[in-house]
Amino acid sequence: MEARVRNSFVRQGYMATLDAEVVHVAAGEVDIGLPFSERLTQQDGFLHAGVIAGLMDSACGYAALTTMDSDAEVLTVEFKINLLAPATGERLVARGRVLRPGRTLTVCRGDAFTINDGQERHVATLTATMIARFARPPGRDMTTPS
Amino acid sequence: MEARVRNSFVRQGYMATLDAEVVHVAAGEVDIGLPFSERLTQQDGFLHAGVIAGLMDSACGYAALTTMDSDAEVLTVEFKINLLAPATGERLVARGRVLRPGRTLTVCRGDAFTINDGQERHVATLTATMIARFARPPGRDMTTPS
Amino acid sequence: MEARVRNSFVRQGYMATLDAEVVHVAAGEVDIGLPFSERLTQQDGFLHAGVIAGLMDSACGYAALTTMDSDAEVLTVEFKINLLAPATGERLVARGRVLRPGRTLTVCRGDAFTINDGQERHVATLTATMIARFARPPGRDMTTPS
Amino acid sequence: MEARVRNSFVRQGYMATLDAEVVHVAAGEVDIGLPFSERLTQQDGFLHAGVIAGLMDSACGYAALTTMDSDAEVLTVEFKINLLAPATGERLVARGRVLRPGRTLTVCRGDAFTINDGQERHVATLTATMIARFARPPGRDMTTPS
Repeated sequence: MEARVRNSFVRQGYMATLDAEVVHVAAGEVDIGLPFSERLTQQDGFLHAGVIAGLMDSACGYAALTTMDSDAEVLTVEFKINLLAPATGERLVARGRVLRPGRTLTVCRGDAFTINDGQERHVATLTATMIARFARPPGRDMTTPS
Repeated sequence: MEARVRNSFVRQGYMATLDAEVVHVAAGEVDIGLPFSERLTQQDGFLHAGVIAGLMDSACGYAALTTMDSDAEVLTVEFKINLLAPATGERLVARGRVLRPGRTLTVCRGDAFTINDGQERHVATLTATMIARFARPPGRDMTTPS
Repeated sequence: MEARVRNSFVRQGYMATLDAEVVHVAAGEVDIGLPFSERLTQQDGFLHAGVIAGLMDSACGYAALTTMDSDAEVLTVEFKINLLAPATGERLVARGRVLRPGRTLTVCRGDAFTINDGQERHVATLTATMIARFARPPGRDMTTPS
Repeated sequence: MEARVRNSFVRQGYMATLDAEVVHVAAGEVDIGLPFSERLTQQDGFLHAGVIAGLMDSACGYAALTTMDSDAEVLTVEFKINLLAPATGERLVARGRVLRPGRTLTVCRGDAFTINDGQERHVATLTATMIARFARPPGRDMTTPS
């Protein structure tokens, strides 16, 4: 299961650009972390919402993948993020958790925390719908996200 | 108005990392584009949802800024994205539009399109709530997004 | 197509409780309206967000149904609503439109307007994901929304 | 605090129409329940998403109200719901919880459960942004939701 997540993760060019790494994998659970960088900020020096959302999206997608059939790949259908506090500090960690697994659709929750001097602060929460995609699609348009 | 947007945009380290540029500014309207890059992909070689969402978030935030008081800065409260098709090709453009301006909150819509050989394809849609933030906050916690 | 929508609509006990009626059906388009009633308000006398969301959800679901295979039924996967102005007045109309049809998932946009003395006011916008559900499900859990 | 919630709740005509009642109030927490009724269904006999969303919206709004200044009223800015399973059975309960309180904006999570023979089933999850509204608004348009 962990190999499956990591084999896909290394193919995400964007995660390398973010300098992100997988820090936890379990059934229905994936955490991804990254160090703070000025390359990833918005105009006030906080981490950009797109960075936070992207990290949470990958964490949720891989959390979903751990519960999917072994021949499935995962694509994001939709997500919504609420920003709770500015993201500043040393590190950001995004925790993706499966709320409801399914053969076709899986619903996940993601939560993002900044870590400073070992203190965590909850900076964002997200809900997402993921879809299983198969190499030989059962339907007409399963090669696209919806 | 355009100077105000561009002065803030150049302070977004993340937009430079994405190699993004502002391509249109009008009252309540901002478009931001970027060239396709393998540095920005998910595992299938499509642009990562975090990249698409981040570009749309900045386009919506700056669209909102064009309608805000001159001493206001803008922060994202929340957004939701629906992915409509895989984002592949030469360029991506995100169009942010103000749906409802307000002194405190502004609601925006964003739409993202890939452009290939001059053909546009609608790949994502987003709705967002933006908040005006003032250097001398009128309330207790207006220095945070919510 | 219109008969298909209306035959399902009359089975929605909730739409009868709202005193709602289908006022427009076309390919990928359904509008539903209702008269203002104090039975449907929140504490300030505005129409409750649940009423507005429910009307938009049905309008979007039936808009999706018009584009689905003839043996499909429709269920809501998720929706998000932004409230733009208080909903007061004589009537509310919710307009559901298909943004992206698909064999499995269909993405819709909904917009709600109050109508007073013939004047429309945009009071809410919504995006939704709908899923096609078949009497003989092709997968293991297609009888549930996700 | 409980009186404040109940005094507002009885002014919601829609909650009476749903036959809903407040079943729990604590700091940052409100639960609202209703009995199953055919008056509240969609075409398959499940509770309509608008009913579930409306109940969760009220639960979240009142949860937010318990953390707001005593002269504040609460309005919904936005919410997003993911439906996890069909809502059937004897009763539905919606649990609203404050994730992040704020003077202006409060972010809440809602979860809805069906209850049958004492067994709970998680049927929907929601995130919402609530805004505090004051009788004498500090800003220009604080009498509207955004």
